[in-house]
Amino acid sequence: MKTVKAGVVGGTGYTGVELLRLLARHPGVELVAITSRKDAGTPVAEMFPSLRGRVSLAFSDPARTDLAACDVVFFATPHGVAMAEAQRLVDAGTRIIDLAADFRLRDLVEWRRWYKLDHAAPHLAAEAVYGLPELYRERIRTARIVANPGCYATSVQLGFLPLVAAGVVDTGHLIADAKSGVSGAGRKAELGLLYSEAADNFKAYNVGAHRHVPEIVQSLSEAAGGPVRVTFVPHLVPMIRGIHATLYARITREADFQSLFEKRYAGEPFVDVMPAGSTPDTRSVRASNLCRLAIHRPGGGDTLVVLSVIDNLAKGASGQAVQNMNIMFGLGETTGLEVVPVVP
Amino acid sequence: MKTVKAGVVGGTGYTGVELLRLLARHPGVELVAITSRKDAGTPVAEMFPSLRGRVSLAFSDPARTDLAACDVVFFATPHGVAMAEAQRLVDAGTRIIDLAADFRLRDLVEWRRWYKLDHAAPHLAAEAVYGLPELYRERIRTARIVANPGCYATSVQLGFLPLVAAGVVDTGHLIADAKSGVSGAGRKAELGLLYSEAADNFKAYNVGAHRHVPEIVQSLSEAAGGPVRVTFVPHLVPMIRGIHATLYARITREADFQSLFEKRYAGEPFVDVMPAGSTPDTRSVRASNLCRLAIHRPGGGDTLVVLSVIDNLAKGASGQAVQNMNIMFGLGETTGLEVVPVVP
Amino acid sequence: MKTVKAGVVGGTGYTGVELLRLLARHPGVELVAITSRKDAGTPVAEMFPSLRGRVSLAFSDPARTDLAACDVVFFATPHGVAMAEAQRLVDAGTRIIDLAADFRLRDLVEWRRWYKLDHAAPHLAAEAVYGLPELYRERIRTARIVANPGCYATSVQLGFLPLVAAGVVDTGHLIADAKSGVSGAGRKAELGLLYSEAADNFKAYNVGAHRHVPEIVQSLSEAAGGPVRVTFVPHLVPMIRGIHATLYARITREADFQSLFEKRYAGEPFVDVMPAGSTPDTRSVRASNLCRLAIHRPGGGDTLVVLSVIDNLAKGASGQAVQNMNIMFGLGETTGLEVVPVVP
Amino acid sequence: MKTVKAGVVGGTGYTGVELLRLLARHPGVELVAITSRKDAGTPVAEMFPSLRGRVSLAFSDPARTDLAACDVVFFATPHGVAMAEAQRLVDAGTRIIDLAADFRLRDLVEWRRWYKLDHAAPHLAAEAVYGLPELYRERIRTARIVANPGCYATSVQLGFLPLVAAGVVDTGHLIADAKSGVSGAGRKAELGLLYSEAADNFKAYNVGAHRHVPEIVQSLSEAAGGPVRVTFVPHLVPMIRGIHATLYARITREADFQSLFEKRYAGEPFVDVMPAGSTPDTRSVRASNLCRLAIHRPGGGDTLVVLSVIDNLAKGASGQAVQNMNIMFGLGETTGLEVVPVVP
Repeated sequence: MKTVKAGVVGGTGYTGVELLRLLARHPGVELVAITSRKDAGTPVAEMFPSLRGRVSLAFSDPARTDLAACDVVFFATPHGVAMAEAQRLVDAGTRIIDLAADFRLRDLVEWRRWYKLDHAAPHLAAEAVYGLPELYRERIRTARIVANPGCYATSVQLGFLPLVAAGVVDTGHLIADAKSGVSGAGRKAELGLLYSEAADNFKAYNVGAHRHVPEIVQSLSEAAGGPVRVTFVPHLVPMIRGIHATLYARITREADFQSLFEKRYAGEPFVDVMPAGSTPDTRSVRASNLCRLAIHRPGGGDTLVVLSVIDNLAKGASGQAVQNMNIMFGLGETTGLEVVPVVP
Repeated sequence: MKTVKAGVVGGTGYTGVELLRLLARHPGVELVAITSRKDAGTPVAEMFPSLRGRVSLAFSDPARTDLAACDVVFFATPHGVAMAEAQRLVDAGTRIIDLAADFRLRDLVEWRRWYKLDHAAPHLAAEAVYGLPELYRERIRTARIVANPGCYATSVQLGFLPLVAAGVVDTGHLIADAKSGVSGAGRKAELGLLYSEAADNFKAYNVGAHRHVPEIVQSLSEAAGGPVRVTFVPHLVPMIRGIHATLYARITREADFQSLFEKRYAGEPFVDVMPAGSTPDTRSVRASNLCRLAIHRPGGGDTLVVLSVIDNLAKGASGQAVQNMNIMFGLGETTGLEVVPVVP
Repeated sequence: MKTVKAGVVGGTGYTGVELLRLLARHPGVELVAITSRKDAGTPVAEMFPSLRGRVSLAFSDPARTDLAACDVVFFATPHGVAMAEAQRLVDAGTRIIDLAADFRLRDLVEWRRWYKLDHAAPHLAAEAVYGLPELYRERIRTARIVANPGCYATSVQLGFLPLVAAGVVDTGHLIADAKSGVSGAGRKAELGLLYSEAADNFKAYNVGAHRHVPEIVQSLSEAAGGPVRVTFVPHLVPMIRGIHATLYARITREADFQSLFEKRYAGEPFVDVMPAGSTPDTRSVRASNLCRLAIHRPGGGDTLVVLSVIDNLAKGASGQAVQNMNIMFGLGETTGLEVVPVVP
Repeated sequence: MKTVKAGVVGGTGYTGVELLRLLARHPGVELVAITSRKDAGTPVAEMFPSLRGRVSLAFSDPARTDLAACDVVFFATPHGVAMAEAQRLVDAGTRIIDLAADFRLRDLVEWRRWYKLDHAAPHLAAEAVYGLPELYRERIRTARIVANPGCYATSVQLGFLPLVAAGVVDTGHLIADAKSGVSGAGRKAELGLLYSEAADNFKAYNVGAHRHVPEIVQSLSEAAGGPVRVTFVPHLVPMIRGIHATLYARITREADFQSLFEKRYAGEPFVDVMPAGSTPDTRSVRASNLCRLAIHRPGGGDTLVVLSVIDNLAKGASGQAVQNMNIMFGLGETTGLEVVPVVP
């Protein structure tokens, strides 16, 4: 196996440390640089003692780091960073996987509405591939820039895709009631994310107005071949990792829904359609790149319920980023991602 | 204030200890007996050290306890116990508040379908009043038997009631995505309720087939003046107390929904309609008898979202039971329930 | 009962909101002002929805608030604030209860060593009374300034006091292995206090060098009539409230240790010496002002083990502050503090 | 690499599922049987969905399973099972790793005192090797029966060993204040282990009388070359995995303690002596086989404090069992154990 030289920009957040956890054991990757403006000089393993003996690099100043010498650079940064660096890197032949939102939307007016910035690289946004392998695997292989999907967006899209693609539900009234562990909000010193605020507590937030909605709508509309409308309500769960999306759709055409899902995801290494009647729990995918799905039709009525679970930091972020890298560089798609979920 | 003599049957579960917490400080109540077949003779404060110095009673054998000498008896027992004892007690002039489901449904065929038992006192089931004060306060005043609502049922009904009563939403397709803390499952030694199973984890269960559905449908149908259908999906949250119901309804007639809720609950001491845009968290009602509601209309579309939070052991069980007792005996409705929510 | 006019300086932290929870229901207190420089103008109940309907005040600018009109002012502020305001207030006849450390140490060289500040009011520090009622109740009655003890300090002192006062253990080698819930670190936006950092995790910190050590040593030395040395290791527990101190002492003189504790604390309303063999859990005092103690002598050896639990925000901070206020103003000592611990 | 045929007896508990997690990815092991009397016939992945796609075996009836065909059998059973099966297996040339206590103590009178059973195989108990590789690696290589250490015992022994072996502390008064996550108590349906009991709570239990004490004393006495006495107080922490032992010892002879530890554990693949001043947290070893240690001497006094963290299910049980297997069968000692700790 050839060795891919990888760099990580912004390695001090949760998606950053998760990338390092995965890359440190990846047999096809050499980790050559991890940048952090604020923590340049600090050994990575000093900030994250869990990586003692596994990652010997120190954070380096991005201004003094030759990222263009990498085969691939992961941006585990806030929105707005990757788009400023992208042109220089792709010009140098370095491929990019952006874990933030800079390249997720093709409609840049919409992008600006949600992210309050002018886009710095509109032509690259047009070229970038949305990194959901189950939908765009072929395009990812040759992409110069992959826009890694949002965590909520991954769980919701994988749950709705077979239904909207088959045209069997009312796509004007999809409902996604999503619940995320606290790490989904990032490693930010904010009051609302404190243990004493988030523990033993449950709440909704950003009702109907979360930034992941437009990318969900973009993919589902393309799959549906027409407009899609989703009511999306995210909630904060007192757990570290995990997303559970409970999806509701009105049936417009009869089908064998269980079979529909099983066929759609046959052969997908990281999507597990569970037996009818299952209720997957988030820990069953903890620390792994899996998405588990279960389909229910309560009382035989006309409302379908899909349960979708992922680890927000793995399939919802860094795991999917590594999956995309594997596809881009012709490594086995599951390489470095064979982690067995950690239970209990 | 006169003193109400109260007995508790089955005081070893979570609704039992919560009743004791509330009754121990209630200025209008004398706690005269707490029964437990299995733990007869054990001082209550030995099983629950939190009650040391507050409750001096020991559990007594129900067979040797003169419950008929009480003014009111609370049944904090599994389903099936209250209905067997009820006739004897009401004959003796003792009033009953059943925290289980024996008297919640008027349709006993339906009751049997969910609880797998023949009802032992059908005539009393017909007479019993469903103990949701916001709906049936007047009937509760004179009731001999009050059927205390289920915890999920309370949160869902309070959130949907103004809408279905006003006839402004599609009552054939209500969706209730509900999340409960683990204490809602009771103090039972079951594997799925272990800390190591339920912590850092999230899952749905009993999708579309929870026992609280029929009582929700019963009340909402009566309020709507016609049939109501609810898709109900409960989830287990890694927290001790709290229910968060996220309710979805399709708008069929325009209205000022915020105002509709505020008017419906004006004067209700335990229902707090929060300002538009709020996202109540469960801890904001922790250990208190409050229900807080918030109404959202994402993107101005035709789907309404109502957020409803309660403490499952308080307004969802024992607090509501005390509220019912206060109403039944002409005590101030909020007496003994002025607990300020415990935050953090 | 006369009404005490109370003000709170710095009401936006956890000890602040806990004070408000207790004072809002206190029958002998009128809450007249809550100051916050940063949040002046914000209604208290907007920041803490748990107080909706209970506290109608808004935060006021300290510069525009006439605190001298209060009978008592609580400082729930960082260290250094109370000492700057104290002289003006006591001159006006207002009494002070400082929940921070400004007045806890009589040795101001030591104080400066730990708090890195020059003391702004040395003569008041000399006059202030250390607010541990079980040790200094009489002095508290007439104190103008009460220095409310630290949370760890309260649990450790109550556990060691009977032993050092009786001269039955080696006071040169006391060991206090203490564990605190995360709220003990305050409502501060710090990375280490995030849910995703503190949950499902356990660690020691400040080994042997915590700021609560000097006040522990000060009180125990006075009680012992000679020097005392304590090895103190604090730990962070993934829970919101609660401190559990596990105390180790080498026996130097035989005694009936259980009886020693029972006699020392007979009549104390907030100290519960549990039966021999008990292992008190922190939840048994949750949200209450109690300290529960248990004494063990493993294997009949010469090492004594004392277990001491409190709620860090109640007996460890705001509850004890209210207890001190009750003593200072001749209210019943337990008034407003009769909360039954919240279990589960 | 040759392939070791492995069987697991009692695979339905937490040490069982952890063994399966590790063995499922171990390149040198073929998992041939997992027995469970109660759940015979159930696919393993049905009970533990986290193993879907990783473990295809079903639980088999021990009476019908040819364990003697295995090269090694792990007993992840309650105490008393392994000793009954051991003779038959070793006679057949099958080697045994017992994760329970049957073979941990050489003094069978002591064993009987703690486990309330007559030992079924005293001669094998005499032959068995205590499976702490850092102490008995050479004996483990050729052992027929390895007694895998207890979880607390591992963390405490690794922390005290360098000190007692060097003769620099008072071995008559060692203190081990240990804290464990709830999974350490096993997958048993007991009230005290329920989420609603153990969450947001902290308590000591079995003060000074835990079953792990005699094995700690046995090893440390051998290392010390004389009698050792340990006061051991275990506590229950609201977290799933992890043990944090805080160890106290009185210094009797000066030494460079940091260096003492570093030399003792130089070359040990799973013991990490952290830099002076460190405070390791349990999550820094989560899901990995590591033990991290830090040494403190507060205030330069005569009390030494050692902090020792492990994952109770990994280095404290199943990880160490796999490490022992690797040693016994000449596989690389770290094979299958290179898991990077899962943070956050």
